[in-house]
Amino acid sequence: MEEYKQGVRAFFKNDKFAELVGAEIVEVTDKCVVVRAKIGNEHLNGNGFVQGGMLYSVADFAFAVLANYLHPASVTQCGHINYIRPAKTGEITAIARETERAGHTCISEVIVKDDKGETVCICNFNGFVKDVDKLQWIKGV
Amino acid sequence: MEEYKQGVRAFFKNDKFAELVGAEIVEVTDKCVVVRAKIGNEHLNGNGFVQGGMLYSVADFAFAVLANYLHPASVTQCGHINYIRPAKTGEITAIARETERAGHTCISEVIVKDDKGETVCICNFNGFVKDVDKLQWIKGV
Amino acid sequence: MEEYKQGVRAFFKNDKFAELVGAEIVEVTDKCVVVRAKIGNEHLNGNGFVQGGMLYSVADFAFAVLANYLHPASVTQCGHINYIRPAKTGEITAIARETERAGHTCISEVIVKDDKGETVCICNFNGFVKDVDKLQWIKGV
Amino acid sequence: MEEYKQGVRAFFKNDKFAELVGAEIVEVTDKCVVVRAKIGNEHLNGNGFVQGGMLYSVADFAFAVLANYLHPASVTQCGHINYIRPAKTGEITAIARETERAGHTCISEVIVKDDKGETVCICNFNGFVKDVDKLQWIKGV
Repeated sequence: MEEYKQGVRAFFKNDKFAELVGAEIVEVTDKCVVVRAKIGNEHLNGNGFVQGGMLYSVADFAFAVLANYLHPASVTQCGHINYIRPAKTGEITAIARETERAGHTCISEVIVKDDKGETVCICNFNGFVKDVDKLQWIKGV
Repeated sequence: MEEYKQGVRAFFKNDKFAELVGAEIVEVTDKCVVVRAKIGNEHLNGNGFVQGGMLYSVADFAFAVLANYLHPASVTQCGHINYIRPAKTGEITAIARETERAGHTCISEVIVKDDKGETVCICNFNGFVKDVDKLQWIKGV
Repeated sequence: MEEYKQGVRAFFKNDKFAELVGAEIVEVTDKCVVVRAKIGNEHLNGNGFVQGGMLYSVADFAFAVLANYLHPASVTQCGHINYIRPAKTGEITAIARETERAGHTCISEVIVKDDKGETVCICNFNGFVKDVDKLQWIKGV
Repeated sequence: MEEYKQGVRAFFKNDKFAELVGAEIVEVTDKCVVVRAKIGNEHLNGNGFVQGGMLYSVADFAFAVLANYLHPASVTQCGHINYIRPAKTGEITAIARETERAGHTCISEVIVKDDKGETVCICNFNGFVKDVDKLQWIKGV
């Protein structure tokens, strides 16, 4: 499994958009994926808060890593985000946990927190799991 | 109204994250807002497709511009995205249209298309409209 | 096609829950499905408004009819509802229109209105379209 | 608090639609609300499964009870449902837990299970909390 975990990390190192927005994988386990981003001026909206697209992007990336670690070749079907509090500075952390897996469907909740531990937004993702072998997938990428 | 439209555009020029991801306001009218982004390598995921966070970010930005043009000082409460087809190259265009406004709530649908005119994703946003005067808002920003 | 439309209506006549809540199919065309319900005391919540589950149920039923009329053997993957205004008496009407179909995915918007034509809620549904022949499906049900 | 809990239960006894669909409050605590419904023929769709509107209605009711128990005079702004597995017979149970409360916003996750304990659907609700005193609210209803 450790080899597979390394493969997933390597695959997501090729995610150029995650790199652009500064989203970094901090932790990958069977229970959760943690993604973090240091907030700079480039992440802010006109009001000086972390922009909504940035918050979503970090959450979505955490889900993508988790879903593909647990079930290779998952694709996101829907994402849903509830904005709770504004975030301004420091860093934001997205923690993705799978709520359910059944058949071709996997559902995760992703909570994004600021560096005081306050919840900034709460997301839910619905992924479609393809019929692909894990090792085959990791060799192909 | 033309003065206000200029004010809204000026305000969103200060959106640093929109700048980072390359989202540009193309059109602002009472009927719709159009936002466009040229796709480069930095917008792609590990599979070589436009990353899900990028797609959402462009849609969310179009909604933010529209909601604040129509109703000053709107904030996004929830966003929902359905991914339909992958997009790879060229440019993506988000068209935001308001579905409904009632009391403090405004709802928009945003459709993101690739440069062949094919729908890439369909989003829905729910905004909270604050009690703020339009001209007061634009002077304050 | 007329034969198939009759088949779909017959199939949905067997929807016992739609019968329980009083949801009736008014119109089935390629462009939209209209479902209506007369509001009685049994549809109200503790505040005397049409209950949120009732509003969703009528919308969901309109989507189910439309999706299965256009693409046999569709199943709902996700539903999303934005509540706009309360409804109290008279009747409510749900109009379902398909926004997009691509591959196994179909997306519809359903708007529920009260009898003054005011929008009560706005829903979006994501359906999975199975690989089934239309006539085969209708004979099997 | 016990007096208030009784008040909430009394208020929701007046929910006529919950009565129509057979949704019964089983448990009300600070941590969760449990709602149950015995499944009869009247809850089934044309395929013989529990209808999607029925599943949503039970989940939405559990959220409404929880939100109003924790924060009087909450109204649902959005509901989101992911369908996971079909349910056929026996009973269904919705367990609502609050994920977050901040300012006027409260977010809950509601999981609906069949009588084997399998997850049937996963819902998320976003409520708006009004500025109302708890005891004032309960006396008014």
